[in-house]
Amino acid sequence: MVVTTDMLMEGVDFQSQAVTWQRIGRKSLAVNLSDLAAMAAEPVAAFISLALPRSGGRRIAEELYEGLLPLANEFGVGVAGGDTNSWDGPLVVCVTATGYVNPRGPLLRSGARPGDDILVTGSLGGSILGRQFDFCPRVREALWLHQQFNLRAGIDISDGLLLDLSRLAEASGCGAEVELAHVPVSPDAERLAAARADNATALDHALSDGEDFELLFAVSPEESRRILATPSLPVPITRIGRFVEQPGLWALRPDGIRDRMSPRGYEHVLT
Amino acid sequence: MVVTTDMLMEGVDFQSQAVTWQRIGRKSLAVNLSDLAAMAAEPVAAFISLALPRSGGRRIAEELYEGLLPLANEFGVGVAGGDTNSWDGPLVVCVTATGYVNPRGPLLRSGARPGDDILVTGSLGGSILGRQFDFCPRVREALWLHQQFNLRAGIDISDGLLLDLSRLAEASGCGAEVELAHVPVSPDAERLAAARADNATALDHALSDGEDFELLFAVSPEESRRILATPSLPVPITRIGRFVEQPGLWALRPDGIRDRMSPRGYEHVLT
Repeated sequence: MVVTTDMLMEGVDFQSQAVTWQRIGRKSLAVNLSDLAAMAAEPVAAFISLALPRSGGRRIAEELYEGLLPLANEFGVGVAGGDTNSWDGPLVVCVTATGYVNPRGPLLRSGARPGDDILVTGSLGGSILGRQFDFCPRVREALWLHQQFNLRAGIDISDGLLLDLSRLAEASGCGAEVELAHVPVSPDAERLAAARADNATALDHALSDGEDFELLFAVSPEESRRILATPSLPVPITRIGRFVEQPGLWALRPDGIRDRMSPRGYEHVLT
Repeated sequence: MVVTTDMLMEGVDFQSQAVTWQRIGRKSLAVNLSDLAAMAAEPVAAFISLALPRSGGRRIAEELYEGLLPLANEFGVGVAGGDTNSWDGPLVVCVTATGYVNPRGPLLRSGARPGDDILVTGSLGGSILGRQFDFCPRVREALWLHQQFNLRAGIDISDGLLLDLSRLAEASGCGAEVELAHVPVSPDAERLAAARADNATALDHALSDGEDFELLFAVSPEESRRILATPSLPVPITRIGRFVEQPGLWALRPDGIRDRMSPRGYEHVLT
């Protein structure tokens, strides 16, 4: 059995003016299901703790559950408890989820070896346009992959491809080399780049935007070929590079030049 | 396996000016251990989610753990994960704990029957004078009682004797009759009454103050006699009444008069 927990805070993880309580409720469970997927665990139960604004809190709670319960049903998760509170502060939702692992055990961050391929599901970047709330956690895909193939290590991309890849590599005691031309860039990342909200390219968004909630995993080159040769995969899977002995993150540019990269993504700042 | 979760919020569950972060950290785990005790479960692991004030948050986190870790060690609890965040709001600590139950299964709220005795550990009221932070969760006592005796139902007193007793009775589909003269009143409750902060008597405090974190449980009259006749109990245990068929809470006064009582205690208000 594995346990995951994730806390969402108004003003940090969402702006209540910009999104419905239903979508926030759905997301509060979805991020935990994504964490279970990262360990290739089958969701079992969820526990919902709320700090609700005193004024209007009852309606907020109802709408949170209206968003959360359909997702729980979809993935067979029992909402088995929690702690409901009220206060004068903003909404805080803390969800804990439990999951069962198959006889292969949980997929960990620490099993990648130099030479392993780096694979990623879906496409990346620009989740802020809506996918950050409406993504489908990759639970079924992770269970299927872990069942069918010998995955060495995995993580879900919650804080940005480069940041989460650096965590995977560091936990495995190796480095990672990313072939920039192969990173799957989402249409949302293209849209953001076209809108020129900042000077970031679509690839920049794909490399460092948070909340893609795709799976990033390590497999041997042979297993990688087997996976990529599988007809009708349940989700697009792309090889974006390989793990290397030298620690750190490395970019392999289309022209063959190899540059050091620093992990970029969302990190909580504490002073 | 059982799972408990409890969220503590600055300004509601504690005032940060009035108490050290260490004591808040200790309490955030202790309340969960008390919930495990209420189910007669052996603590296994804890998961700590924090919403930390951005400014000074690192020191706050360190001090929370300084208070929490010694209690975890004392009860053999592994701090196995969590989610650390920062924001501009007040501190929120959400702890989830897991526990194993013995072959008898978890102690539930729903097993009391009319005629069962109501027993309580320790003495009640006035926890606001300090016990609300420094209480020792009744884990060892609950495991011992559940092992040695046939407990029918149990709960920990977190929101006040009458409120938690009414929950126990309601979950068991019966009522409860309290012999007011037998309720164990703590010295803190006496001190509060003597200070006349409000017009409450020491007994009032014992009946309705929250955060005693004592165990309240149901046993058959025979088992009650066995428990109360045990030499050197690990904690004082008092019989305070019995469960009855008629739903609701009933006070049996020293003069023999029987009055209906309403459950009093701490409830979160939502509008």
